[in-house]
Amino acid sequence: MSVQAISWTASGAVRVLDQRALPEAQIERDLESAEAVADAIRHLEVRGAPLIGIAAAMGLVAGLRELRGAPRDMFLARLAQLVELLGAARPTAVNLRWALGRMARVASATPGDGAAVWERLHAEATAIWEEDRAMCRSIGEHGLPLLADGANVLTHCNTGALATGGIGTALAPIYLAHERGRRVHVYIDETRPVLQGSRLTAWELMHAGISCTLMPDGVAGALMRQAKVDLVLVGADRICANGDFANKIGTYGLAVLARHHGVPLYCAAPWSTIDPALADGDLIPIEQRPADEVTTLAGRSIAPPGVAVLNPAFDVTPARYVTAYLTDRGLVQPPFAADPA
Amino acid sequence: MSVQAISWTASGAVRVLDQRALPEAQIERDLESAEAVADAIRHLEVRGAPLIGIAAAMGLVAGLRELRGAPRDMFLARLAQLVELLGAARPTAVNLRWALGRMARVASATPGDGAAVWERLHAEATAIWEEDRAMCRSIGEHGLPLLADGANVLTHCNTGALATGGIGTALAPIYLAHERGRRVHVYIDETRPVLQGSRLTAWELMHAGISCTLMPDGVAGALMRQAKVDLVLVGADRICANGDFANKIGTYGLAVLARHHGVPLYCAAPWSTIDPALADGDLIPIEQRPADEVTTLAGRSIAPPGVAVLNPAFDVTPARYVTAYLTDRGLVQPPFAADPA
Repeated sequence: MSVQAISWTASGAVRVLDQRALPEAQIERDLESAEAVADAIRHLEVRGAPLIGIAAAMGLVAGLRELRGAPRDMFLARLAQLVELLGAARPTAVNLRWALGRMARVASATPGDGAAVWERLHAEATAIWEEDRAMCRSIGEHGLPLLADGANVLTHCNTGALATGGIGTALAPIYLAHERGRRVHVYIDETRPVLQGSRLTAWELMHAGISCTLMPDGVAGALMRQAKVDLVLVGADRICANGDFANKIGTYGLAVLARHHGVPLYCAAPWSTIDPALADGDLIPIEQRPADEVTTLAGRSIAPPGVAVLNPAFDVTPARYVTAYLTDRGLVQPPFAADPA
Repeated sequence: MSVQAISWTASGAVRVLDQRALPEAQIERDLESAEAVADAIRHLEVRGAPLIGIAAAMGLVAGLRELRGAPRDMFLARLAQLVELLGAARPTAVNLRWALGRMARVASATPGDGAAVWERLHAEATAIWEEDRAMCRSIGEHGLPLLADGANVLTHCNTGALATGGIGTALAPIYLAHERGRRVHVYIDETRPVLQGSRLTAWELMHAGISCTLMPDGVAGALMRQAKVDLVLVGADRICANGDFANKIGTYGLAVLARHHGVPLYCAAPWSTIDPALADGDLIPIEQRPADEVTTLAGRSIAPPGVAVLNPAFDVTPARYVTAYLTDRGLVQPPFAADPA
């Protein structure tokens, strides 16, 4: 069984599993305001491109609870402020802005005062979450043919139940293959600096009883050279019209290694990760994270004080390294056009 | 000024800078016995292929102090035991066995009782150390032409003053270029799991006033794609007759990235790192290190309990990825033959 990363509380707050505390502690936090949700996204208590989209939509609803009695104009003005606030929490993943844009459009299109619009927004946020759960399953089903019995998969960062509203993106086919009794083994990059591989992917796969091996990021090359990797499955935070995509730092290096060794690499993501407005990957804003993610761990210094640090959260992998894009609409190839509105 | 990683104490023990404690604390340890030296090598308090060769030779001398009054046979029997013990401390670096072999041959060739042989061994261990210091400088001088003013170098692990008896191997040309007023910038892979890049290379380069930037291992690909790396300089723990070499895990991945981006990669090592008895890299024994190097840090768990871990200390880079081998005899190319005895 996969874990549940997000839910509503009885009083309408957003309940999340604090992903900074894992795997040492399973702590649920009830985020009562949009500000609290934005903070949780900024500090990586909630992370994963699909999940931060869901969390932002739900955070908007939680933050507008107190304005349910307000007149329409006041309600929409506050909504616009909170959309701005939540949208600025992290810059790279497109799902965040996609979810907030969808919520704002629904609010505009819904007649009536605060109460009526709020009810509609609550339903829409829940729909975004439910749709994500369905998209995960669909990604998993379309990805199942990639995983023969005995397959050895290499993955990076966390793209599972902890990154989405459902069973994940790149991990979704692995969950389904395991459900159906296929033997799949997952090599997990620990994924420095935040260690999403060690702390989250290893934890959720072990929780589900799926065979896995954790390793430092530098092992991937040697493993491919030994022909121990059948395919690489990674997620994406934004996919451009031409297929270039941003994902966790280190993905590009893996993609070069996979190409060099003739190992197929699949980029798994819901369709909402595609940003057809961006022509290519050089246009994607890359978030630079604080130095202390690299220089300290659990309050202990692991580097000399004052050292200069390069800590980009993401890198861009050009489309030519990708065997196929695994989406809820199947295995697809670029270019990607905007859906008809 | 570079730091001093090893020295004799007044009473003939081996004084080392504890490299597990850096950069939080500069702790010198006086290792009184060969067993203590073997432990320090095994636990990485002393590491770096050239330095563990020096430490083993000096440890042999420290451990035989109490047998100076012994007859020749007893002295040589104990020496053989300690050579065995020290040689088993780590399997991959050839310098360890090279230094011990040299000490054993000198002992056999020296006439007289324990006192006479011990005096000769003391001089030989000091000679190994002094020769290493000279080799480092020679590597640096031969490497200087590789570093134009303004050069951006990427390095992995620690190959500096903390890895040798002198100014290092791959870092030696950087020290000399800096001495001569050339501007050189060093991008340092943090080098998981033991973080020799963060803890040691960043520390010793900052100590020497050399410009550097620390980054997670996964950043190298993106940095090369942005054309920010002019050359890659790495060390080696063993170089085979055909030029294949073992070095810190992650080196092979860097070599593939360098080749893919047209960035030259140099493997820097003293001549004693060449093992002409091994035809190619697949014959090099690769040390598997304990899982807790990956799953814990400073006593804190960073992965789920019981997770399976792959933690090879080294990988093998085939010779075809290497632009040239930077040795104390100059820039050379394989095949490498044994020196005439």
